Amino acid sequence: MEEKNIKKPKRKKRCVSCRKPAEINVTVPFCAPCFIKHFDRRVERVVKKNKLAMAGDKILMAVSAGKDSLSCAHVLSKMRQERGFMLGVLHMDVGILECTSERSENVVREFCRERDIPFHFIRFREYLGADIVRIANSRRRTECSVCGAFKRYALNRFARENGYNKLATGHCADDIVRFFFKNWLAHNFSWIAKSKPMTLSNHPLVVSRIRPLFETTEAENLAYTKANNIVVAGCSRCSYFLRNDKWNDIFRVIDEKDRLFKIEFARGLEMAEFKVSDPNRVLNGCRICGEPTDKEMCVVCRLKGNKADDDQIEDTTVVEGD
Amino acid sequence: MEEKNIKKPKRKKRCVSCRKPAEINVTVPFCAPCFIKHFDRRVERVVKKNKLAMAGDKILMAVSAGKDSLSCAHVLSKMRQERGFMLGVLHMDVGILECTSERSENVVREFCRERDIPFHFIRFREYLGADIVRIANSRRRTECSVCGAFKRYALNRFARENGYNKLATGHCADDIVRFFFKNWLAHNFSWIAKSKPMTLSNHPLVVSRIRPLFETTEAENLAYTKANNIVVAGCSRCSYFLRNDKWNDIFRVIDEKDRLFKIEFARGLEMAEFKVSDPNRVLNGCRICGEPTDKEMCVVCRLKGNKADDDQIEDTTVVEGD
Repeated sequence: MEEKNIKKPKRKKRCVSCRKPAEINVTVPFCAPCFIKHFDRRVERVVKKNKLAMAGDKILMAVSAGKDSLSCAHVLSKMRQERGFMLGVLHMDVGILECTSERSENVVREFCRERDIPFHFIRFREYLGADIVRIANSRRRTECSVCGAFKRYALNRFARENGYNKLATGHCADDIVRFFFKNWLAHNFSWIAKSKPMTLSNHPLVVSRIRPLFETTEAENLAYTKANNIVVAGCSRCSYFLRNDKWNDIFRVIDEKDRLFKIEFARGLEMAEFKVSDPNRVLNGCRICGEPTDKEMCVVCRLKGNKADDDQIEDTTVVEGD
Repeated sequence: MEEKNIKKPKRKKRCVSCRKPAEINVTVPFCAPCFIKHFDRRVERVVKKNKLAMAGDKILMAVSAGKDSLSCAHVLSKMRQERGFMLGVLHMDVGILECTSERSENVVREFCRERDIPFHFIRFREYLGADIVRIANSRRRTECSVCGAFKRYALNRFARENGYNKLATGHCADDIVRFFFKNWLAHNFSWIAKSKPMTLSNHPLVVSRIRPLFETTEAENLAYTKANNIVVAGCSRCSYFLRNDKWNDIFRVIDEKDRLFKIEFARGLEMAEFKVSDPNRVLNGCRICGEPTDKEMCVVCRLKGNKADDDQIEDTTVVEGD
């Protein structure tokens, strides 16, 4: 009787791979080295399966200094020699006080120096001649929506002008699933149809997009940066913990009930094929700047005030950016 | 200062339509008569938009005596004269003690008598010569999965044999959304592609399926039966409140955050078009009973033990039943 009542000390979880004590438990328990291997292999499978990075490719990775883009850049930098592609990094000062700092610039610069990755840096004020905050105020739009449009524009233009044939972003399963739900409810199936690990260029001015973290979650990316001692200095405004809409609560419950849901859901999205009426709209060069657009003028030129007409301000030429 | 501290008495919510005190608040507040009108109109829109019930149609509605199928039969019965279709009801004794009772048979019989709807009744033991419980035990399958396969078979055969050209089930937005998630994660996109308000017959032996409650939720159906004083005697096992998997918790949170989510999601499913490799598989007659199947023998004959081979017991010829 007495023996029955003696509680066994709570056993420490062990790594599912090597049985050493587990240090990381995002989906299943892992020690740090096994977690890194597991993470690398998952990203590598996505890269191979979808031909994201091939010999001879010149890939520009957009790095904000956050956990997602730094994790992605780290895996790609480890992969580049074996797979024979070249990797460059672009960091952007978007000109919003809370989102850009000398610290994030230095974090990315140092990250690249350590790994011998060419580092590029642009300021929206100089590169695009645009002040996001002023434009957002005058157009009565949120800074984030204006910033998103300018980032997509700048990334594509910079990559093309600098001889890169692919543009990598740190979009992960969380972004993919969130994007799916928002657009499913808005019946934007043509946008969902393009939500794949790779969006191939459909115009000479458009650079192909790749999303190597399609099958990893934000929580895994965070654990990956910690396990690799990668210094992170992300934008606080767009951060995981501060994004405060109803989807956060919903995904928190889903995560509790099924830790693999977002990964499995994103895998479904890789395989699902939608019939859409406008998979590739006809693109032209913007009459002001020459950048690709399906309207007369691109969204950046319109927002910069080259035309008073605000009716059709949405421009989805390049799928949502980092 | 004092006035500020005096709490106003909590104002009773008012019907969004007629401003009388609200009695029902599932999605938005309604008085009972306005809720009934609103519900009827929503179902009517689905029926018209998808041509579910046309002049001259003979529609057989499968009614279990639960809130969903009774709500559906009630709306269809109100609609039949104006739209010029004929409605019949089929109630089945599936032979599982907790799921069938004389009470549920009498509830459906009385429901039909009051509305002058032809009432049909079959017992699986006689109609199919099958004992679900014994088959489930000997095949080591759950009773619910065996029952589902037999129901789909019996519904299709009975409708066809009795001259009905359409088969209506009480599937509602909750079922549709749950079905979507389970099959998305299992990559069964061809099943999802068929999840529409109508599945047209793809073989002379297959009766077209209609789902008039595609855009209403279980909670709304329950409120609708109450508002109409419809006596319900549903199967307790499959009931909303007892279905106890992880999706229940997830959908509860989603409902709290967005009361229209399931309806909006189902509407998305109506509009989304999937590219699937096997939208219409080749169907033959089962070599034992002649019913449609994409194998040599239909699932019912295989489960009844006409063949020892259990390898391919799944048969999805007729999409999941009520």
